[in-house]
Amino acid sequence: MGARTIDGRTVAERVMEELRQDVASLRAGGVWPHLTVVLVGDDPASATYVRSKAKKAEAVGMRSTVVRLPAEVAEAELVARVRALSDDPDVDGVIVQLPLPPHIDEAAVIEAIDPAKDVDGFTPENAGRLFRGDASGLVPCTPKGIVALLDAYDIPIAGRHAVVVGRSNIVGRPAAQLLLMRDAAVTMLHSRSGPIGRFTREADIVVVAVGKKHFFGPEFVKPGAVVIDVGIHRDEAGHLVGDVHPAVAEVAEWLTPVPGGVGPMTVAMLLKNTVLAARRRRGWRDVAGA
Amino acid sequence: MGARTIDGRTVAERVMEELRQDVASLRAGGVWPHLTVVLVGDDPASATYVRSKAKKAEAVGMRSTVVRLPAEVAEAELVARVRALSDDPDVDGVIVQLPLPPHIDEAAVIEAIDPAKDVDGFTPENAGRLFRGDASGLVPCTPKGIVALLDAYDIPIAGRHAVVVGRSNIVGRPAAQLLLMRDAAVTMLHSRSGPIGRFTREADIVVVAVGKKHFFGPEFVKPGAVVIDVGIHRDEAGHLVGDVHPAVAEVAEWLTPVPGGVGPMTVAMLLKNTVLAARRRRGWRDVAGA
Repeated sequence: MGARTIDGRTVAERVMEELRQDVASLRAGGVWPHLTVVLVGDDPASATYVRSKAKKAEAVGMRSTVVRLPAEVAEAELVARVRALSDDPDVDGVIVQLPLPPHIDEAAVIEAIDPAKDVDGFTPENAGRLFRGDASGLVPCTPKGIVALLDAYDIPIAGRHAVVVGRSNIVGRPAAQLLLMRDAAVTMLHSRSGPIGRFTREADIVVVAVGKKHFFGPEFVKPGAVVIDVGIHRDEAGHLVGDVHPAVAEVAEWLTPVPGGVGPMTVAMLLKNTVLAARRRRGWRDVAGA
Repeated sequence: MGARTIDGRTVAERVMEELRQDVASLRAGGVWPHLTVVLVGDDPASATYVRSKAKKAEAVGMRSTVVRLPAEVAEAELVARVRALSDDPDVDGVIVQLPLPPHIDEAAVIEAIDPAKDVDGFTPENAGRLFRGDASGLVPCTPKGIVALLDAYDIPIAGRHAVVVGRSNIVGRPAAQLLLMRDAAVTMLHSRSGPIGRFTREADIVVVAVGKKHFFGPEFVKPGAVVIDVGIHRDEAGHLVGDVHPAVAEVAEWLTPVPGGVGPMTVAMLLKNTVLAARRRRGWRDVAGA
């Protein structure tokens, strides 16, 4: 017995294969999509994420550049660097690895990114478009990857009850918005909304993005539900684990594993956004692969 | 028996009185807040709304200007007029009365408004800030008025279950966001999310913004709930009625009437936003009244 696995690695690999073909055709047309990543300081986890993004970009045939800045960089200097990348006609995507050191105002740095190159979808302009139900902007990668996973497994969204636990700007809020745009009834929960079980036990789809190891147990799940685990933590034994307790597999019908669920999709969607940005800023139409 | 009335007229009048004092002190300091309203075509309902906004602005001591344009105005001409108002240092607030004629792209016109003067809170920048939980922008007037009404009656929001029926960019989506920012558990429903009763019958607070006369009956309400009626329609006898059926008063604990509920608050919040905009673009701090 146990839930069926939503295999993010396989779906992400399929997306990467489509992107490989699309990048090849772009390059044949004289456009070599270029992702730039700004990394401040030497946090090992951040460095690992950035390396992985750059490596995957190159795996689909894109260019990538990592701009490394010391942890003590002044906010004005960082903003100027981000703005220079935004202004560089040779750059298609600009992302800033978060979190930033405490002396820097993240919002000020994010707002220095040209919305047309904001492949993380974090600028107010792109957030505002998404919030207004307008799909023409660049959409945050993790929520976009979650919806792509549901689609890959033909899991219906319209008319179903989706509950999003966690209200971050990177995952929870945009995930709720995307599920709303796909015609779900959507409930948003968070650390101050009271006991979650009352809502999650009624839900067809639950997105868990709370950042607490094994927080979400089987007592919160309706039999037959779809559970998406956005968390990633290292346990005492050094293994990667999620926000969802393994026992949820005994109740849910579908479950994303950690690792190998949402994670690979996030990077795939970042590359997809970069191809989209490369096309759109040249006035080219989107293609199925991107 | 019957629900207690949330009296929007009285609360709005209190807000207006605070604004009157604030405008007087601004004028004493050499600043005369100036609201401009762009009206395209001669729809009688739109003309009535615009007249009411201008009249109320003057009632609190502000200046107001109504810019009337013919229904056939070209989009480029309308955008140019809106941009000119945005650029005019003598103007604090710019709103465009909706709906616009079908040949005009509303989004293009809205985006011509300077976010610092966007007192309806409709630009992508202000929508994006709200969506990201950032209260530093200008917030749409009807949702802001709804929260102000709940506060005026000391109705708690944090930790309660709020259901918003309707997902418009003007009311439903921003109302859900404001209730989320106030720590409610928030469910968003709409025409394609399936039967609403399953959710609304569990809700502590229901915001009904569907645009259908007497759509929301007592069968949808939990005894003791708070029901906010955003609809406004004219019935066969010529009376104004809402989205909520009068029989809801037999079940709910609190109910906003139509007319005299949300409506007066919307205009009061527009004026409040105009005072906020007048202060902020001069780098002045907000005051309690605004």
